[in-house]
Amino acid sequence: MRGYFHIEKPGEAIRPALQEKIDNLTKPKGSLGRLEEIALQIGLIQQTLTPTLRHPQNIIFAGDHGIVEEGVSIAPKEVTWQQVCHFTHPQGTGGVNFLCRQHGFALKVVDAGVDYDLPRDRGIIDLKVDRGTRNFLHGPAMTEDERDQCLAGGALVVRQCFSEGSNVLSFGEMGIGNTSPSSIWMSLFTGIPLAECVGAGSGLDNAGIRHKLDVLQRAVDNYAGDGSPRDIIRWFGGYEMVMAIGAMLQAAELRMVILVDGFIMTNCMLAASKLYPEVLDYAVFGHCGDESGHKRVLDFLRAKPLLNLGLRLGEGTGAICAYPVVESAVRMINEMDDFRSAEITKYF
Amino acid sequence: MRGYFHIEKPGEAIRPALQEKIDNLTKPKGSLGRLEEIALQIGLIQQTLTPTLRHPQNIIFAGDHGIVEEGVSIAPKEVTWQQVCHFTHPQGTGGVNFLCRQHGFALKVVDAGVDYDLPRDRGIIDLKVDRGTRNFLHGPAMTEDERDQCLAGGALVVRQCFSEGSNVLSFGEMGIGNTSPSSIWMSLFTGIPLAECVGAGSGLDNAGIRHKLDVLQRAVDNYAGDGSPRDIIRWFGGYEMVMAIGAMLQAAELRMVILVDGFIMTNCMLAASKLYPEVLDYAVFGHCGDESGHKRVLDFLRAKPLLNLGLRLGEGTGAICAYPVVESAVRMINEMDDFRSAEITKYF
Repeated sequence: MRGYFHIEKPGEAIRPALQEKIDNLTKPKGSLGRLEEIALQIGLIQQTLTPTLRHPQNIIFAGDHGIVEEGVSIAPKEVTWQQVCHFTHPQGTGGVNFLCRQHGFALKVVDAGVDYDLPRDRGIIDLKVDRGTRNFLHGPAMTEDERDQCLAGGALVVRQCFSEGSNVLSFGEMGIGNTSPSSIWMSLFTGIPLAECVGAGSGLDNAGIRHKLDVLQRAVDNYAGDGSPRDIIRWFGGYEMVMAIGAMLQAAELRMVILVDGFIMTNCMLAASKLYPEVLDYAVFGHCGDESGHKRVLDFLRAKPLLNLGLRLGEGTGAICAYPVVESAVRMINEMDDFRSAEITKYF
Repeated sequence: MRGYFHIEKPGEAIRPALQEKIDNLTKPKGSLGRLEEIALQIGLIQQTLTPTLRHPQNIIFAGDHGIVEEGVSIAPKEVTWQQVCHFTHPQGTGGVNFLCRQHGFALKVVDAGVDYDLPRDRGIIDLKVDRGTRNFLHGPAMTEDERDQCLAGGALVVRQCFSEGSNVLSFGEMGIGNTSPSSIWMSLFTGIPLAECVGAGSGLDNAGIRHKLDVLQRAVDNYAGDGSPRDIIRWFGGYEMVMAIGAMLQAAELRMVILVDGFIMTNCMLAASKLYPEVLDYAVFGHCGDESGHKRVLDFLRAKPLLNLGLRLGEGTGAICAYPVVESAVRMINEMDDFRSAEITKYF
């Protein structure tokens, strides 16, 4: 798998010039906080003192999970396909839709493996691998071929966005049950005990969380793979999650800004970084959600999310909500002038 | 002073209907976190299930402070007038300008008491009380008449915004030295020791902070007023800060949404609430800044700011950055549909 993508770390040569430009804008040094950090990061990604954001798009990968038959989610499986239909309804009245409208995002919805024959007239991108993964309590959720098919599928969608002129993407997911594989990935990739990685998902009570933890612990105990990241990803992963990994890696290869959403997408970025550590240089973490463990995995990645609004909807909503902050950073470095041209006494 | 403004608490009768509408949108209950809280608050303020945000404006009040002659700020006093000229320059290249453009805010800049003859061709609203306050180390910063003039002036500007069709305003300030009066107000109104209310302002080092604290402690020790909020406000306050109080109170009377900026504006809201506690129902706290003490005063007010981006620029920038979140909340309640019309299984 190493070798499929070619991700370079952004060149460091431009960093001093970027930092000097940011420091000389008409404000006390550092006083625009995170905006200054994001401007620096995007300047590095794009290797320019005048970065731009073009044609943002949110891509939702959707898939079902065999593990749901163990009762790990409060929501029934059918909600996956229902929500996919909902996002792609012409009226656009879902949670993600109003945010896309507000912030000028195009929306792509990808069927990575939904257990339903989705309507053909909604513009849903059909990359369905199968009608849901297998139940990973009893064996791998997907085959090696399916994993590679997912990685390639995610990459394909991102290349399409790139050809449409995008240089900034957010990724979201829809998949009832997908906090379960996320928690396992998190535990196996960080070494944090599983109990600290498992949370309420879309609304489990304490007894439900205990049951979920018990199921997931048994699944981990039953794991019989080789322990490599590429094996762990396919053993537990959802199709939509592995597709998101492929999308993130392709976006990094194309030097795009990647807006990372909530708990599930953060764990996809974690998994992606186990394959290609350089992907993290392209990641802007949008939101720290309420799902137990999200803050822990962000800390592990040394990631500082821009927002903390208590969102736990998925679909890319946390990443899209953070977009105006990213846009502010880019406007800051392009639209503010420096102390000399503004004729203001520089006092620091 | 009680009686000058007529601020009513928002009626509670509509709360159950608002909550029910929010709970039935197509998302797990509570999963849009702070957006749901803000939608409820604005629905209450506007007494409607379909709230709107119209013609947002940012008002910057500017003034100078006599206490600056004690060396409490790293920045020279002249930066106040220079920045006022900068914000109002036709090219609009200041920190606040790009944020106003990005989020569709009109900008009003008010000379509350700048120690300079500002240009007349920049649209600056001239409500100058005097060329800076007196040094409150030796007596009150302003007279009672000046305080009342400031309150009336802030109210006047807000009525103008209201007549222009605005129902949401943010307030910012420009005034070298104004973290000093803010820290004293905070300490006297909350009971938190002054040392925990004093910070670096625009960039003091530790020795500078110790000197600032020493000066401010002596000023508090020298205080010879009657201890009432209205007296404390005028004894230590800046003209621009008292004008912001008048603006906040008028905005609440007119049932407008008030976006509260950083440390200084939070202390103005604190002071306003000492005169009219109901004003807090109209306040949306935009940002928790880096200034030492800001989090403490927010906690005292039981305020949960929407953002924490490490901004410490003032000018209303933290409040304006939070505006898209407020807009998202309003879009959520208006643009999402409910479970029945979306034909999605409600599972909670």
